[in-house]
Amino acid sequence: MSVPIFPTAQDAENAFYDSLERCDLEGMMAVWAEDEEIVCVHPAGTRLSGQDQVRESWAKMFAAGPRARLTIEQQVAISGMMLAVHSVFERFTIPEVKAEAQPAPIVATNVYLRTAAGWRMIVHHASPAPGQPEAAPARTKGPPKTLH
Amino acid sequence: MSVPIFPTAQDAENAFYDSLERCDLEGMMAVWAEDEEIVCVHPAGTRLSGQDQVRESWAKMFAAGPRARLTIEQQVAISGMMLAVHSVFERFTIPEVKAEAQPAPIVATNVYLRTAAGWRMIVHHASPAPGQPEAAPARTKGPPKTLH
Repeated sequence: MSVPIFPTAQDAENAFYDSLERCDLEGMMAVWAEDEEIVCVHPAGTRLSGQDQVRESWAKMFAAGPRARLTIEQQVAISGMMLAVHSVFERFTIPEVKAEAQPAPIVATNVYLRTAAGWRMIVHHASPAPGQPEAAPARTKGPPKTLH
Repeated sequence: MSVPIFPTAQDAENAFYDSLERCDLEGMMAVWAEDEEIVCVHPAGTRLSGQDQVRESWAKMFAAGPRARLTIEQQVAISGMMLAVHSVFERFTIPEVKAEAQPAPIVATNVYLRTAAGWRMIVHHASPAPGQPEAAPARTKGPPKTLH
């Protein structure tokens, strides 16, 4: 399989969530930087670091195959030359489950690094976000804030 | 009160955790960027954004005053010109409580932005990290990885 090059952090994020929804382990791992200092925190989990721990955790999560639709909401993004940080809500919707029994949204902080092979993920930190989402001043549309 | 200038992201992080341990609201808020796009996720909480929501949340947490010692462990740090990302474990120790009844460690992702007024925090995402910490390849000593 050829390794994709992500020209922007947003491209890497799109591929990350596409792989997550489809339970595509190889697609998912192609988003991560080839670096032992990558960090991944799943909801209610401890910190995983390095390629082996991160791959193993997604392999377990993906073992049952796709069962939920995933939408990404309320992105806040800030981008430097080398690093980009996105904060998002992940909303999983299970088709056969009633609205009131759907899982709580997840809040995630995603950090991307510009590498020689395009933008890659170096940190994914996700945790359950109970209660109503913020009635927030956070910008949810438009291009990310870019630092110069 | 004069506003401190933090020459490095690590200086901002030191002030953040010093304020957190001492329950010092003004010290804490001096670490945050003066930006409506700041994001704060407390353990088991939803996303807060903007100065007002973030200040109010720390004011509530600090209302009872300091009662725990705080140590920061296993930092993984990556720094660009404008953004720096630190992943740490926060370990709170309550003096009058037995070792086995101490709170679980917290894993936190902290993001700092280089502003005209020094380095400031723009994201703090914290969540409980149950179970044993990673037996990790993550570097826990030495200077942060700096991007060029």
